Amino acid sequence: MRSMKTRAAVAHAANKPLTIEEVELGGPRAGEVLIEIKATGVCHTDAYTLSGADPEGLFPAVLGHEGAGVVVEVGEGVRSLEVGDHVIPLYVPECRQCSYCTSGKTNLCQAIRATQGAGLMPDGTKRFSVGGQELYHYMGTSTFANHTVVPEIAVAKVRKDAPFDKICYIGCGVTTGIGAVINTAKVRPGDNVVVFGLGGIGLNVIQGARLSGANMIVGVDINSARKPIAERFGLTHFVNSTEVEGDLVPYLVDLTGGGADFSFECVGKVSVMRQALECCHKGWGTSVIIGVAGSGEEISTRPFQLVTGRTWKGTAFGGAKGRSDVPKIVDWYMDKKIEIDPMITHTMGLERINEAFDLMHEGASIRSVITF
Amino acid sequence: MRSMKTRAAVAHAANKPLTIEEVELGGPRAGEVLIEIKATGVCHTDAYTLSGADPEGLFPAVLGHEGAGVVVEVGEGVRSLEVGDHVIPLYVPECRQCSYCTSGKTNLCQAIRATQGAGLMPDGTKRFSVGGQELYHYMGTSTFANHTVVPEIAVAKVRKDAPFDKICYIGCGVTTGIGAVINTAKVRPGDNVVVFGLGGIGLNVIQGARLSGANMIVGVDINSARKPIAERFGLTHFVNSTEVEGDLVPYLVDLTGGGADFSFECVGKVSVMRQALECCHKGWGTSVIIGVAGSGEEISTRPFQLVTGRTWKGTAFGGAKGRSDVPKIVDWYMDKKIEIDPMITHTMGLERINEAFDLMHEGASIRSVITF
Repeated sequence: MRSMKTRAAVAHAANKPLTIEEVELGGPRAGEVLIEIKATGVCHTDAYTLSGADPEGLFPAVLGHEGAGVVVEVGEGVRSLEVGDHVIPLYVPECRQCSYCTSGKTNLCQAIRATQGAGLMPDGTKRFSVGGQELYHYMGTSTFANHTVVPEIAVAKVRKDAPFDKICYIGCGVTTGIGAVINTAKVRPGDNVVVFGLGGIGLNVIQGARLSGANMIVGVDINSARKPIAERFGLTHFVNSTEVEGDLVPYLVDLTGGGADFSFECVGKVSVMRQALECCHKGWGTSVIIGVAGSGEEISTRPFQLVTGRTWKGTAFGGAKGRSDVPKIVDWYMDKKIEIDPMITHTMGLERINEAFDLMHEGASIRSVITF
Repeated sequence: MRSMKTRAAVAHAANKPLTIEEVELGGPRAGEVLIEIKATGVCHTDAYTLSGADPEGLFPAVLGHEGAGVVVEVGEGVRSLEVGDHVIPLYVPECRQCSYCTSGKTNLCQAIRATQGAGLMPDGTKRFSVGGQELYHYMGTSTFANHTVVPEIAVAKVRKDAPFDKICYIGCGVTTGIGAVINTAKVRPGDNVVVFGLGGIGLNVIQGARLSGANMIVGVDINSARKPIAERFGLTHFVNSTEVEGDLVPYLVDLTGGGADFSFECVGKVSVMRQALECCHKGWGTSVIIGVAGSGEEISTRPFQLVTGRTWKGTAFGGAKGRSDVPKIVDWYMDKKIEIDPMITHTMGLERINEAFDLMHEGASIRSVITF
């Protein structure tokens, strides 16, 4: 419960660079743990909130949601974790008690939904402050800080031999992409898959499709420079959508011999979401939305697309139950069933975090990781 | 192959009454059978085409797609049917050979899709004519005639003790509604179901939900007069959408304790399709579109609805494989597992068929059946 000082990148306002500061952090209360963050990825969702476009964005805040670290203190009543455990904080918790967790049908645990969405700890308080000003938490994780406090139900315990600066990526991008394929779409051997957007999520969709034994794995992007790395992860056919003559949808339907069994939207554009649905195979094709669209934007299509057998779905955190599934994905990485290293194009200290955002905006990075 | 004379209701042009005429009918060619139609339902889809709103509507034509009758002649090579068999013509055929049929994932057999959509027999010809003018076939069935010719793959053979004037309804409405629940949604015991539109399809969705052991079966309609018959088929809660104060969606989410596990749109309005999706339970609710929207109309929603776990699907002919599933549904009717009789509010001769359309437009009938 003691307060401590730690180093954090603070987002004081929308659309301003983060500032590296020594901040005050209140210790873990009942059911919470204090984590020393060893590494954190910088994800598009952080950039989306920082840009000011996220209608639920709150400032000042400590952003970051893709971290890995070590438990350094446990609050009262914490039983599933102890000091020294290697962990990944979870922006989708898993309480294993709420009607969502026990349904067996979703990963969207609702236990701390309201406070997490409001930038608060479950008891309604904020724990970060600087110069007497309290800072909002972000996605329940706030990993852009050397230390952070999270509820026990929002922590995945992982093996100790896994490198923090790689497995932090499993805290969001890796699990989102692979999970969308395995948990949400349930791709089966022989299925034809089309992936829109070959960024940090799309590449993980590709390796999830390869892991699932997919037949064709078609990647669609406007940047042909992404082709070689996508091929490394399992891509079989690259399509530069700016170079297709005529409509993209019939082109993809032809290429896949009737349409995709499964398609994945990893861009966040509603026009691409429509293409992803409509390139699905008549009778059974399923499209999964992963990308986050701009506030207030809407998807649309003719209902005939659905009546003739296509299914439109979405996924958050790849449908993964964090405490159960994240440790398994760490094992897969350590067992070389999946790769992460080639996707982490940049690794840097916290003082260079604004550079990580710049690289992302320029399309020059796949994933930048901050190490402490 | 001989030609014969039969009595038919001819649609000479859009939006004109049908005329009862003696027409010429060419006999069954290879792979086809001649059926004496004993009864046929009059469905909204017939009315939609007759109105001229159906962009694929062709005139002059013999409409009708919900019939039952007896095989009176078989063409060369027909092996699965013989003279005297009682049958229901299928507007969704089941060839059991095409990649769709063999996929095990859809009922949308493609074997004769192109010719059927063009109002032709599979060999590209028309067989009905009057005064030397050829008439288009309709949905591959043309049941508004005392005799019709259909391909063997578009015929379900059913038991001989079932009454034609009731089981004809299994040729479309009954199978569409029950099948949407059983085949497309796969409703399970304890699920909460919301049905939009308590007409001839919605009532069959309701009895499908009851058959599947659903918990709440909520019916939404603008006409409270539909409540008693819906209750007879299994409705547990009636909602008159014109009488709800405030928004319908949160009202239904509250009523169902979090949202529908499954919802069904049986109206054909894109605004209702959106409500049907959005009243589904976060995390897992699935909405199934059954209604046919106006030409060119589009459905829309925020992608967040899908990303938070809702699924949007559609169904045609209830996902049923006609030759396999229709005989089973006839058995269910004869075994009293399902009811049909109370939904058939009017039975009349062919000469009164325009009256059947009038009753439908006035909302005065659930289903009218024409007997020969």
